[in-house]
Amino acid sequence: MANQPIGFLDSGVGGLTVVKEALRQLPHEDIVFIGDQARLPYGPRPASQVQEFTWQMVQFLLKKDIKMLVIACNTATAAALEMIKPKLDIPVVGVILPGTRAAIKATQNNQIGIISTEGTYKSQAYVKALHDRNAQLKVTSLAAPKFVPLVESNEFDTPLARKVVAETLAPFKQTAIDTLILGCTHYPLLRPLIQEYLGDDVRLIDSGAETVSEVSVLLDYFKLANLNTDRLATAEFYTTAAPEMFDLIGSQWLGLNDLKAQQVHLEKEITD
Amino acid sequence: MANQPIGFLDSGVGGLTVVKEALRQLPHEDIVFIGDQARLPYGPRPASQVQEFTWQMVQFLLKKDIKMLVIACNTATAAALEMIKPKLDIPVVGVILPGTRAAIKATQNNQIGIISTEGTYKSQAYVKALHDRNAQLKVTSLAAPKFVPLVESNEFDTPLARKVVAETLAPFKQTAIDTLILGCTHYPLLRPLIQEYLGDDVRLIDSGAETVSEVSVLLDYFKLANLNTDRLATAEFYTTAAPEMFDLIGSQWLGLNDLKAQQVHLEKEITD
Repeated sequence: MANQPIGFLDSGVGGLTVVKEALRQLPHEDIVFIGDQARLPYGPRPASQVQEFTWQMVQFLLKKDIKMLVIACNTATAAALEMIKPKLDIPVVGVILPGTRAAIKATQNNQIGIISTEGTYKSQAYVKALHDRNAQLKVTSLAAPKFVPLVESNEFDTPLARKVVAETLAPFKQTAIDTLILGCTHYPLLRPLIQEYLGDDVRLIDSGAETVSEVSVLLDYFKLANLNTDRLATAEFYTTAAPEMFDLIGSQWLGLNDLKAQQVHLEKEITD
Repeated sequence: MANQPIGFLDSGVGGLTVVKEALRQLPHEDIVFIGDQARLPYGPRPASQVQEFTWQMVQFLLKKDIKMLVIACNTATAAALEMIKPKLDIPVVGVILPGTRAAIKATQNNQIGIISTEGTYKSQAYVKALHDRNAQLKVTSLAAPKFVPLVESNEFDTPLARKVVAETLAPFKQTAIDTLILGCTHYPLLRPLIQEYLGDDVRLIDSGAETVSEVSVLLDYFKLANLNTDRLATAEFYTTAAPEMFDLIGSQWLGLNDLKAQQVHLEKEITD
């Protein structure tokens, strides 16, 4: 079972920020990734629809014989993680608890900010997870609905992006947060602009990157890790949209020149 | 079960570096700690004896109705973790894999150093764990047998300590390591001197502190976390030696003015 791949899913290219860390920290693990670009953004969709779309991607990944599932999307984690977990007999990992833990570890003044999609914001999943673990935390949560479209259209380092980042994050200037959770796996692509606006004293938490630590813990705990193999690990990428934009952003972000995603039609795939 | 304490064990006060992070990151969790000061250091002892002593502490902690066991000692983890795990029906966590993961996450040039007790050094547990997870790593491992006695005698910020640190770590100056694993839970008390000697470009990995991240992952995964309670969490400390030195070092290190450890006689306890 240790030789089977780990499955990652996201609404689009955001989950690649998790895959990037997996490639670096777990270089012997095979990876299968699927992004539902044809139907993004997930943020404004009702939770029931996010559950339905996520479950379709889970069924696609299960056909790839994955040994572990990573929901590399905060919106899908908030809406669907607890629904999916009991249905699978492999470990299922979301991105919200890893981000929560990393923020609690990082903060020195117990004042934490969160930015996320509207769906994650409305679920209050981060606020609850933080307060469950430390009732003393002062938490400020904001929705940043314009960020995902900027990333998916490859405009994440443009003057427009700088303007949107400043407008969206302005309320944090009225707080004393020393830690900000990037509560959407798309946001690390905007990290330079976010750090520039908030200044170096605010520690940014990449919930996706932290998720790889949890993946590693569970691989070891359940003896699923693919230990020191001479075989080169593989990474397969699938998208529900035309793959050109995925290949462009993915190649840049992962530093893989030959990244070629395959387009899949989920409704068709899962009824085959 | 979520209300039960987490059990920590060590050869002495070193495990308090793990407890310190647990108190900070998991403020709603009760803690029971035992240090086997009467029989330290564990480093020079044969593995079979470390297993025997560790198992006595495990039996003591099981009587305290713990929900999870943390072997907060690298020497005991190397010698006894795999022996203990299958015997208990609660999650068991060691300190070697968390330190391994954190080092892999931190290194930029894939050159990692390790310092540890002779017992951990001889076991090659870190070297194997690192290479299992990334065959490309260049690893330099050293034993630092004089460090534990310095810490346990409360001499960890003396001129003698500075001299011993410099002599012990000199071989690393011939390497290009950018990350050093403090492969014994006592060593973080020597951290300022180690950092001073190696310079700010070498990232020090506190394997104990990283262990709390793994504890948190497993508490959540197995739904064992003691979530947002109004009750103040408790911490109990036991030592097998006279408690004066334990109280002195523990109070300073944990910032708990009223820390009072109770002395226990393990051989007697476990046959009661």
